[in-house]
Amino acid sequence: MKIGIIGATGYGGAEIMRIMRTHPYADECILYSSSDEGARYDAAYPHLVKLTDQHLQPIEVKRIANEIDFLFMAAPPGISSRLTPQFDAYDIPIIDLSGDLRIQNPSVYEKWYKREAAPEHVLQKAVYGLSELNREDIKTAQYIANPGCFPTAVLLGLAPLVKSGSINESFVIIDAKTGVSGAGRKPSMGTHFSEVNDNFKIYKVNEHQHTPEIEQTVKQWNSAFKPITFSTHLVPMTRGIMATIYTELKDSMDAEQLQLIFSKFYKDSYFVRVRETGSFPATKEVYGSNFCDIGVTVDERTNRVTIVSVIDNLMKGAAGQAVQNFNIMNGLSETAGLEFTPIYP
Amino acid sequence: MKIGIIGATGYGGAEIMRIMRTHPYADECILYSSSDEGARYDAAYPHLVKLTDQHLQPIEVKRIANEIDFLFMAAPPGISSRLTPQFDAYDIPIIDLSGDLRIQNPSVYEKWYKREAAPEHVLQKAVYGLSELNREDIKTAQYIANPGCFPTAVLLGLAPLVKSGSINESFVIIDAKTGVSGAGRKPSMGTHFSEVNDNFKIYKVNEHQHTPEIEQTVKQWNSAFKPITFSTHLVPMTRGIMATIYTELKDSMDAEQLQLIFSKFYKDSYFVRVRETGSFPATKEVYGSNFCDIGVTVDERTNRVTIVSVIDNLMKGAAGQAVQNFNIMNGLSETAGLEFTPIYP
Amino acid sequence: MKIGIIGATGYGGAEIMRIMRTHPYADECILYSSSDEGARYDAAYPHLVKLTDQHLQPIEVKRIANEIDFLFMAAPPGISSRLTPQFDAYDIPIIDLSGDLRIQNPSVYEKWYKREAAPEHVLQKAVYGLSELNREDIKTAQYIANPGCFPTAVLLGLAPLVKSGSINESFVIIDAKTGVSGAGRKPSMGTHFSEVNDNFKIYKVNEHQHTPEIEQTVKQWNSAFKPITFSTHLVPMTRGIMATIYTELKDSMDAEQLQLIFSKFYKDSYFVRVRETGSFPATKEVYGSNFCDIGVTVDERTNRVTIVSVIDNLMKGAAGQAVQNFNIMNGLSETAGLEFTPIYP
Amino acid sequence: MKIGIIGATGYGGAEIMRIMRTHPYADECILYSSSDEGARYDAAYPHLVKLTDQHLQPIEVKRIANEIDFLFMAAPPGISSRLTPQFDAYDIPIIDLSGDLRIQNPSVYEKWYKREAAPEHVLQKAVYGLSELNREDIKTAQYIANPGCFPTAVLLGLAPLVKSGSINESFVIIDAKTGVSGAGRKPSMGTHFSEVNDNFKIYKVNEHQHTPEIEQTVKQWNSAFKPITFSTHLVPMTRGIMATIYTELKDSMDAEQLQLIFSKFYKDSYFVRVRETGSFPATKEVYGSNFCDIGVTVDERTNRVTIVSVIDNLMKGAAGQAVQNFNIMNGLSETAGLEFTPIYP
Repeated sequence: MKIGIIGATGYGGAEIMRIMRTHPYADECILYSSSDEGARYDAAYPHLVKLTDQHLQPIEVKRIANEIDFLFMAAPPGISSRLTPQFDAYDIPIIDLSGDLRIQNPSVYEKWYKREAAPEHVLQKAVYGLSELNREDIKTAQYIANPGCFPTAVLLGLAPLVKSGSINESFVIIDAKTGVSGAGRKPSMGTHFSEVNDNFKIYKVNEHQHTPEIEQTVKQWNSAFKPITFSTHLVPMTRGIMATIYTELKDSMDAEQLQLIFSKFYKDSYFVRVRETGSFPATKEVYGSNFCDIGVTVDERTNRVTIVSVIDNLMKGAAGQAVQNFNIMNGLSETAGLEFTPIYP
Repeated sequence: MKIGIIGATGYGGAEIMRIMRTHPYADECILYSSSDEGARYDAAYPHLVKLTDQHLQPIEVKRIANEIDFLFMAAPPGISSRLTPQFDAYDIPIIDLSGDLRIQNPSVYEKWYKREAAPEHVLQKAVYGLSELNREDIKTAQYIANPGCFPTAVLLGLAPLVKSGSINESFVIIDAKTGVSGAGRKPSMGTHFSEVNDNFKIYKVNEHQHTPEIEQTVKQWNSAFKPITFSTHLVPMTRGIMATIYTELKDSMDAEQLQLIFSKFYKDSYFVRVRETGSFPATKEVYGSNFCDIGVTVDERTNRVTIVSVIDNLMKGAAGQAVQNFNIMNGLSETAGLEFTPIYP
Repeated sequence: MKIGIIGATGYGGAEIMRIMRTHPYADECILYSSSDEGARYDAAYPHLVKLTDQHLQPIEVKRIANEIDFLFMAAPPGISSRLTPQFDAYDIPIIDLSGDLRIQNPSVYEKWYKREAAPEHVLQKAVYGLSELNREDIKTAQYIANPGCFPTAVLLGLAPLVKSGSINESFVIIDAKTGVSGAGRKPSMGTHFSEVNDNFKIYKVNEHQHTPEIEQTVKQWNSAFKPITFSTHLVPMTRGIMATIYTELKDSMDAEQLQLIFSKFYKDSYFVRVRETGSFPATKEVYGSNFCDIGVTVDERTNRVTIVSVIDNLMKGAAGQAVQNFNIMNGLSETAGLEFTPIYP
Repeated sequence: MKIGIIGATGYGGAEIMRIMRTHPYADECILYSSSDEGARYDAAYPHLVKLTDQHLQPIEVKRIANEIDFLFMAAPPGISSRLTPQFDAYDIPIIDLSGDLRIQNPSVYEKWYKREAAPEHVLQKAVYGLSELNREDIKTAQYIANPGCFPTAVLLGLAPLVKSGSINESFVIIDAKTGVSGAGRKPSMGTHFSEVNDNFKIYKVNEHQHTPEIEQTVKQWNSAFKPITFSTHLVPMTRGIMATIYTELKDSMDAEQLQLIFSKFYKDSYFVRVRETGSFPATKEVYGSNFCDIGVTVDERTNRVTIVSVIDNLMKGAAGQAVQNFNIMNGLSETAGLEFTPIYP
């Protein structure tokens, strides 16, 4: 298959390229970018010297539709909402890594993203690509709204307890931490090395645009759930997300019982590794891989549960899950091209 | 005054030394250590080359009591509980930076610290040295139990709302993050560079020994408070603690009203800087200084409050607050020798 | 004295502010900036919340000359070359932290800096502010060309051997490493956290604009010296420079003899700490302080000397040395306001 | 093939495991360790949870020789010198990652390593496994002395100019920088996070045990070469080595000519990527991969060459090159199992 990547110069695009370079079903990746047309891709990413001879191509919808079989869009918000409708005439499968196709209610999107939503007919075709939870819908989808990095970690952490009806629907507090690569490659004061290094910051307290994405999915699972509390922090590291989730059990349970709910729930999900009771994952234990590792416990003094969910934000939180969805859509093994062992240390 | 420091080779001891070297009322620091007797102190800490000519002295209680006017103990847990009773005959003021004198109930100490508690007659003399809250008692104390790093950040963040009776007594969730220097100078797998760098870990979920210290103080302020939820995370940075605290308002309030409660509460506390509404501190903004910076907001969707409290764990979380208590005990200006501007970047 | 700082929003300006806030002879700092006129300074630098109430003032030469007694210029290259001539009518002492006044030959400046040089009559008034070497000239100077960060570390490392005629004049190889704050506060791809973290880069091989500054001074000391080899590397840390200097002895000497040359040379220089034989400094051992620490050894197999010189690039490499020069110019103790103990760890 | 790994709990052993897990010709890895016999391997390395069910086996020579087809030794110095002679009776191919088999002259080994050398009959069988330079000898070797991390970067950087007779034989200065993982997994003060983070250190000035390894090989290529100058520095990062090498041309040449010598020399070497003129590699551009990237230039003012060579110390500097040698020894494609794209960022 010929794969197209729009937004190839961002970190998400580069990570799709890293995966697809050795994916057994990708014959070629063609890279599109709104800037640097004609430039060699390895000039932007010297780690790919001698590994690719691609040059950046301009984003021309008709030409792209004719020359590729499958399209990944890894552009900033606001691009996909405009481009996907243009591709709609060409019947080409698209996985969109931005938030543009994730929120089904346009006014909710516009409130949190502060920009115009995609047209409703496009949104209706988009399936939310949380691979482990939506496999059947993904198989037949034309468009995938690939989940956000935080929602992936959070929803995989919450699903077993939400779906089993075990927790208080008004009590979900998520304290999330991310590495800096989640902010993309565009330089800014907030991602300037001297501002971030040896520093720990909180940002977007109750204001992160991933909030409605998490709430929308949780409410699809159980409409009784109330608004969540969600904060995001910036860690002086490049890759990795940890979501520490606090909730409350309806009925008392011990840590082993909790662990069992999780391990049963994910027993057929290769990429979710539920840790043994008493063990919690660190972000580096999934570095460079598509795994989501989860640990869970309960404090018997308070009947509150702590769920710890970690991913590599560029892999399971972006490009990795996108390729996992690509595999599902194309009837391939879910792990094809994704057998990366975490790099440690 | 002649100052003694027991446990001078640890990071806490070295930080007291950094402060006292330029403190206007400290004539000399004499350094005691259970190891390396006779060694030059700048051999252990070459950043002090030419700034000190002290050699490490053995820990001999009688001799120490005779040669110094004031004693800081910056040793690991289990030392002070054994040494302080020996000093009790000499009427020397002591500030202890370990946890040994903080927990008034010996059986609670023994449960969480898993070691023998200090004798009750010593515990009864010890005043909890949370400077801003206990100034009057500190003034006349013989022994100060200097607060733990996490409790300092947490309690300064909680005090205004606990003391004003504004929050739900069963709802305190603390997600704490610390730099690695809090673990001390002794090498271990958990603080090995290659294990920590570019990594983010959770540790001691519901098990941290600072839990009873926080609960004891909160309950002294308001006995209605229930057990808290408390998790600690390790950030790949050297200094700094952030406590992100989630609680619930009894009655609805907006962010400005909340901010006002905090800024009034700390209006006479130089070292607590309450941020303007909508602004949250980062750990580096207090680096090397004795400040505790606090930001607070409320989510009107959930009526939940988020309090963000940051300190430098070696300063306000250890040596800085110790010297602040030294100043209070000696009738000096609270800021004497502590006018460090945060180092940024 | 009333102090003015032009370029106050950069890291160099902020570091002057940190020092001057507690300097015994600075009554007030007035901050000038070409951007953000009127903005509160602590909005740009929240670590200064409650420590300053200054607002940024526009750069108006006449007004500045009237309201201040002493001027620091901490602006990017190209500003001072244009502004200093305008101040020339007002007889105000200026310390310029940029490279604009350092190179006495305008055509050399223009070749390496690729911009127009300052007028010759201004250059002729400028004294090169390498404090330990040029004290007498600094005392009476009107303008100080404050040395670059790399030249400070390199020249203090080379001076004892160059001035004693001990080394081969054609053999000076400097492998320099710097933290990222040396690149300033303006975001760029090269200082973007995800590009720098867990990475080590070389930049400006034989092309760094500090090359002619080093060569000019070395040749003033001994005109026989030939062009040097000079490379610069970027370390994933915020502050600190290490220059590892390789040269060759004319006559054989052992490490103790070498160390003695250095320790005698700097015996009256508080801020240069020569390490004992066999000991080499690390950058963190001078963090936040104005020290330059030097270690030196010789390989008897090759008769080659290795000199290791470290500074904090924002202190001895910029603001600290600037204030040291301010002290010398004003007849104060060289250490006034500069008694910062290095922060460790 | 059944692969054995002695010293599996170290970082080198874990990296062999990472590679071999997906290597097409490795059926199974059996892990041996002198400690933690019987322990699950994923307890030591949780990033491998669910990816391996191996338990650590004791080191029993006879049993090992019977159950495996190929042995990697990734133990600290002093183990292989003792164990390899014991395996000598069993005719099993061994790749040793320690320094024990690298130095052909036992007295040189003993001087630099300060421990007893391996027996001469074993040393004589050992081929130095610098893959690109020694392919023919490696093919038929029984024992491989896998090169050290620094020597790999340095020798690949020097080979084209040494072998072409282009440089002054008395002028080789190597300023080397390494990430912390090169020091292994055993905690120590020198690798304690708070001591290393935001710090840059020099260590082993003219004393590194890799010095004789570099000199031995350079002299095999050209016996006229004199002792080198070699310093090593510790970078606050986990993986990566950069060697900045300074030498002097015999006859003048420009940068393009130099680049051409390198690119011709390595035209058939997939894992060495010579950069275009004017471009220099950063360590992260080879992170997690087996590449050695090289940039080279000359300063026409001095006729001195600067060679910049980077590797991932755990890959091309240890486990990656070991597997490359395994491939050569077994007649496989040199890249089998080693097609890792560098992880960036």
